[in-house]
Amino acid sequence: MSSPVGLHRVIEPAGVLPQAARKLDASPQISADEVRIRVERLNLDAASFRQLSEKHAGDGAAVRAEVCAIVTERGKMQNPVTGSGGMLIGVVEEVGPESPLGLAVGDRVATLVSLTLTPLMITDGLKGWDGRSEQVPAEGHAILFGRSIAAKLPDDMDPELALAVLDVCGAPALTARVVAGYRDATVAVIGGAGKSGSLSLAAARQAGARTVGIVPHAREAELLTGAGIADHVAIADARDPVALADAVSGALGGPADVTVVCVDVPGCEHGAILATAAGGTVIFFSMATSFAAAALGAEGLAADVTMLVGNGYVPGHADVALRLLRGEPGVRSLFEGRLRAD
Amino acid sequence: MSSPVGLHRVIEPAGVLPQAARKLDASPQISADEVRIRVERLNLDAASFRQLSEKHAGDGAAVRAEVCAIVTERGKMQNPVTGSGGMLIGVVEEVGPESPLGLAVGDRVATLVSLTLTPLMITDGLKGWDGRSEQVPAEGHAILFGRSIAAKLPDDMDPELALAVLDVCGAPALTARVVAGYRDATVAVIGGAGKSGSLSLAAARQAGARTVGIVPHAREAELLTGAGIADHVAIADARDPVALADAVSGALGGPADVTVVCVDVPGCEHGAILATAAGGTVIFFSMATSFAAAALGAEGLAADVTMLVGNGYVPGHADVALRLLRGEPGVRSLFEGRLRAD
Repeated sequence: MSSPVGLHRVIEPAGVLPQAARKLDASPQISADEVRIRVERLNLDAASFRQLSEKHAGDGAAVRAEVCAIVTERGKMQNPVTGSGGMLIGVVEEVGPESPLGLAVGDRVATLVSLTLTPLMITDGLKGWDGRSEQVPAEGHAILFGRSIAAKLPDDMDPELALAVLDVCGAPALTARVVAGYRDATVAVIGGAGKSGSLSLAAARQAGARTVGIVPHAREAELLTGAGIADHVAIADARDPVALADAVSGALGGPADVTVVCVDVPGCEHGAILATAAGGTVIFFSMATSFAAAALGAEGLAADVTMLVGNGYVPGHADVALRLLRGEPGVRSLFEGRLRAD
Repeated sequence: MSSPVGLHRVIEPAGVLPQAARKLDASPQISADEVRIRVERLNLDAASFRQLSEKHAGDGAAVRAEVCAIVTERGKMQNPVTGSGGMLIGVVEEVGPESPLGLAVGDRVATLVSLTLTPLMITDGLKGWDGRSEQVPAEGHAILFGRSIAAKLPDDMDPELALAVLDVCGAPALTARVVAGYRDATVAVIGGAGKSGSLSLAAARQAGARTVGIVPHAREAELLTGAGIADHVAIADARDPVALADAVSGALGGPADVTVVCVDVPGCEHGAILATAAGGTVIFFSMATSFAAAALGAEGLAADVTMLVGNGYVPGHADVALRLLRGEPGVRSLFEGRLRAD
């Protein structure tokens, strides 16, 4: 019997989840609740690609050979040094009769679960890739489990834009859910001009909140003000607790009911807690968040705040994010500007 | 003007919170919202004491000299290597007219905020301490801010027992609050026979939940069963996600609405997520929790669970915990057994 989280695909070590496995079974025959995808492109995680590229001093052929070797050996693309993977784009090739994912043969999809847990087989030696970019044209197949997540790529936008949105789509969905739990909420988004930040600002305002976007310097403030998706824009160093709390209070007239941390720099925990009202909620989306700094910081400040680990999965998250992009020209312009700059 | 979080006591570097400061002003004159405590005893954090003791190869006089030097230099007891502090016991000596803490001169209290942010001056050279134990008899004074937390020591129990309870009192209070948000909740406490675990089990049952305590081996299972504070007791390795989820489901008839992680070992995140029902909540109290493992694990499992950073502060938490100890003989027996074993 197949497991909805893919335990039956784990070859070694026995008993761990696919993400923790050294080796997965990527054979193409699917179980009743699985889906097979014909792969078109891998998007390697930025940290993973950087490590590989530096290791091989920019030698694209060597990077390509190593990615092929990793996938052959592990049955998935998980960089053994960084531990990270990425995501992929492909077309649905076969759907098991008991798959709960709602996909049909021919759908063009992006996987929203990491490559680190996705069974993958490459059949073209990645011959279409020069090894010099995170975007990897590829032929082969990948397997989705019963509890995997994939989103159909929309017809009305560039796939690259859609992917950038889908990559952070958990943030606006969770922000909207949390804001809905407050009456006339005030919301501060730290890193409001970034991808997850701008979507979270738009989601909070659509959920009825009064918002402030906090940015680190004048150029970002100008960008965010121009986008018109925040009620207020303020500049503060998120690592300076007092400055951050003052900026939030100055804009909102008091601490925020909900503070959303979207900046990937360490040391923002105390400021986020101090900027949040008693009874409020801090949502940490930054992977640079220190669990201990958050827990001990709130205790040291006697702060009665709920602190959430930003879960990248909320049912319907892809639709929420794509709808925000379509409905909020300011969000779209920020995303397109960042894609041009990359 | 004094700051409720003690910013006015920070000497250097300017602008940081007292916990992050290198040096605090520990002078005895209090502001309008401060309280001065006459210190009786410091309880050094276990990790801090171990580091000092190992550094000086068990030479108690050298350990004592270094603690005196740290407090003199920093104006607080924060081990520069481990970064940790501890807590203290003392008697209220002066209460500022605007203090919101509800303390009166003569109250015997334990501070529930860390020594790492508490202005402290030692006046007896710690002459009553042999430098060989975490319990440090001391004369001097300490300062509480407007937003500090202190609990009156109860008359009806050994101070050592009360301190052990107060040390983990955030866990049962937050567990009770979360459980109250579910109807007929089922609750799994990982590490149910420990200090925070047993209090959380008792709090969950008093809040109306059906509970299972998960323990690592037969001896702990016997202890917890004997205490009679859990509806079910099951044995599982919390680092094995499938085994943990199976143990919880086996006891409760399905995944838990609320899973409380109280074991200080790394690698319990995936199991806790897998053991929790869709729409459920995981509360991480373990300082060994990895933020990234929790965030990426939930996404990889497509798990719609709310994940909370266990905040050590919940209003009324000390009273909740002491009431549980008084009302639940099983909790008391577990605590007394652990204190005897220490």
